[in-house]
Amino acid sequence: MKIKPANPKGVKDLLPREMARRNYILDKLREIFSKYAYQNIQTPAFERLDTLMGKYGEDEKLLFKILNSGEYLHDETVQTLLKSEIYDAKEITPKIATKGLRYDLTVPLARYVAQHQNDLSFPFKRFQIGAVWRADRPQKGRFQEFTQCDIDIVGSKTNLHEIEILYIINDFIQEIGLKAKVHINDRKIFDAIGQLLKLDDSQKKQISILIDKKEKISAESYSNELTEILANEKDFEDNTKFNNFIDIMNSTTIDDLIQKGIPKEATESLQFILENAPNPELIQFDLHLVRGLDYYTGTVFELKPIDINIGSIGGGGRYDDLTSLFGLERMNGIGFSFGLERIEFCLDQKEIFEFKSSNMIRIIILHLIENTKELISLRKNILENASKNLIIDIYPEKSKLDKQFQYADKNKFDYALIYGDSEQKQGKINIKNLKTFQQETLNLDDLTKFINKNI
Amino acid sequence: MKIKPANPKGVKDLLPREMARRNYILDKLREIFSKYAYQNIQTPAFERLDTLMGKYGEDEKLLFKILNSGEYLHDETVQTLLKSEIYDAKEITPKIATKGLRYDLTVPLARYVAQHQNDLSFPFKRFQIGAVWRADRPQKGRFQEFTQCDIDIVGSKTNLHEIEILYIINDFIQEIGLKAKVHINDRKIFDAIGQLLKLDDSQKKQISILIDKKEKISAESYSNELTEILANEKDFEDNTKFNNFIDIMNSTTIDDLIQKGIPKEATESLQFILENAPNPELIQFDLHLVRGLDYYTGTVFELKPIDINIGSIGGGGRYDDLTSLFGLERMNGIGFSFGLERIEFCLDQKEIFEFKSSNMIRIIILHLIENTKELISLRKNILENASKNLIIDIYPEKSKLDKQFQYADKNKFDYALIYGDSEQKQGKINIKNLKTFQQETLNLDDLTKFINKNI
Repeated sequence: MKIKPANPKGVKDLLPREMARRNYILDKLREIFSKYAYQNIQTPAFERLDTLMGKYGEDEKLLFKILNSGEYLHDETVQTLLKSEIYDAKEITPKIATKGLRYDLTVPLARYVAQHQNDLSFPFKRFQIGAVWRADRPQKGRFQEFTQCDIDIVGSKTNLHEIEILYIINDFIQEIGLKAKVHINDRKIFDAIGQLLKLDDSQKKQISILIDKKEKISAESYSNELTEILANEKDFEDNTKFNNFIDIMNSTTIDDLIQKGIPKEATESLQFILENAPNPELIQFDLHLVRGLDYYTGTVFELKPIDINIGSIGGGGRYDDLTSLFGLERMNGIGFSFGLERIEFCLDQKEIFEFKSSNMIRIIILHLIENTKELISLRKNILENASKNLIIDIYPEKSKLDKQFQYADKNKFDYALIYGDSEQKQGKINIKNLKTFQQETLNLDDLTKFINKNI
Repeated sequence: MKIKPANPKGVKDLLPREMARRNYILDKLREIFSKYAYQNIQTPAFERLDTLMGKYGEDEKLLFKILNSGEYLHDETVQTLLKSEIYDAKEITPKIATKGLRYDLTVPLARYVAQHQNDLSFPFKRFQIGAVWRADRPQKGRFQEFTQCDIDIVGSKTNLHEIEILYIINDFIQEIGLKAKVHINDRKIFDAIGQLLKLDDSQKKQISILIDKKEKISAESYSNELTEILANEKDFEDNTKFNNFIDIMNSTTIDDLIQKGIPKEATESLQFILENAPNPELIQFDLHLVRGLDYYTGTVFELKPIDINIGSIGGGGRYDDLTSLFGLERMNGIGFSFGLERIEFCLDQKEIFEFKSSNMIRIIILHLIENTKELISLRKNILENASKNLIIDIYPEKSKLDKQFQYADKNKFDYALIYGDSEQKQGKINIKNLKTFQQETLNLDDLTKFINKNI
């Protein structure tokens, strides 16, 4: 029986070219994270369901659950279930699945910090890069498996870390040549606006949801929905609150906000961060940024490319309490997550990345003689003595020259070494530049010297 | 409600020190794989169950299956199932799970090659590093999630690749300072022995299983089981076959084998490989190595540390046909897989790896003044102008000196920069070596120069 070769819907393979681009990005991120003293950790792909459940609100339905036991459910379990006549999937699932694939790297981090608190020193600065899984409906550009690159500082309140994260973002986008802005806001300001306008909790919640989707709806619907939320119940004609809200939200500076009655305490952290940002061009103060997640309590930020229509390619914020659910109280922190697939998309759009690791030179030794041994020693010699970063392949078997050049072309080799019977007799070798098609004949003994000097 | 902070049984977290060791190994492997022109690819963590099923024999029960749909089974599915009164888990499972976590990287490779054949050029040399999952009973040193580092060449018959793989192994163990031997054999020789002794298929199968477990059982049980398999049904006293088999299996060279009647054709590949091995010390010709997996048809090898009792830390072999199940015929190939967790174990045993990336120097800027801004610029300046590979942290907030030194100590910093109020006034800075406790006072402007020159 033949099986259709297909990966599951919603997830994807990476071809060598795509993986090279991914590694290019990951290398930069790892290097920058390390430079700022973040330490790498790892957690398993799956967590206990009691770790994951109750953390993601509505999105809990997007958790992938793993069937108990390696192979099949135990017959007894199935029989017991069936005999119990429970017809409700919600009731049955916990009996047949107790593990789930992680949905993000934040809940695993909280669990990790609580579990290993005695092995860690706080403030704990960690980075983690790994796949996460969400059972979203598969659609273009949105996958069920994707990669998050997270940095978090756990156990520290100082806004120094926001600045550090801005430096990291700045270094990263400069290194990969991407134009982007960090939109930044503070939940404390949003709370202060609510207090100033005497909004109740329900109104605040509704407005935060509305602001979150502002870019996705028309100005008219935004205005209508806002009117509805802020309407004066006694006097429908009175739109004071609406006007005040719009007025405050139009502020473009912190001074503006303070003049309109927002207390200074609510703006102090943001003020400090803006003053210390690595590059004023990088930052966009954005009162309309709230970020949906419930656990943020201070700074929130999102990284958005300037000239690519993709929304955000990263986001994060400050939280007062990450781990108390796991029994570890008073753990402040702040984190930021880079979305790898979206960054890859940007590099693709801007054609920033070319397949071919920048500092590696790719050489192919053509296979023109019977004596494989000589080709093997040739490679060994070059690898051991050349001072360049080389990738060296030997064409696997003696075959037609054009077939070998085809392989060299498809695999983007930079140089071909041509060593046939006549070269062998004369102790010579030809090196051909596969871009310019220039060819040089050398004494075999001079090859490494030539490579070190000329390529 | 408090939730117990615990990862699922059978999988583990990596602490920063463990992850640093892992990254050290992975960096070496990636570098070496690339040098020999292997290209990196990636496949998703889960595959369709029809891709995975029927490939692993008895071990199929170790596949982790993923429940259909993001959240719960659909109520209708459950109801239909229950009404059908199927009480057998084997019947029910396929109706509620159609995806599974990958069990190795080989079956996904076969699926990948068949699926993307038009985007690849053959011979296709790829490496892939990733977690695989097996629902083994959790036990010491054996995990349900572990990492394989695979290289394969698909679409080529030449034994050049065996030699290439030996070079890769040799480079790798030398780089990480591990003593190990590659045990090597050829399935063709095993087949030839079977033919010479006129063994039937069942005998061959039984012997291959017996040989595979030779190291795990006593010499006596081995001998007894072998006698039983090779007994002459007509004459129980006749142990010719047994003696002949033992005699042949005691051969230590290929010449030995040929003298005992094994045809030269069966030994030619191995002869060629042994002659071209990078280092004769590395290789151990081992007639008792067969490797259980059904798909191997030629060379088989395993990498075993010499002085650490852990069995093999890698293995692989040649296969005639990897992809025909997926509709792509005649794809020869050869592969080798390094077991990351086992290599980590070896490095741990030999205390080869020290926490602290070898070429990174870790500096902490103590936080002794109010003006954070100055500390931030200080770091910025050093990072931009120093020629060394530096990791620089700033202690997050002004606090007691001994608390800050404790943090520096726990996080293995090499140097501390001490810049308090009096240094600030004088334009000086102190740099303290945290190993020797030597301290130098410098002009602030000379700091980078000092770092470049002296640390």
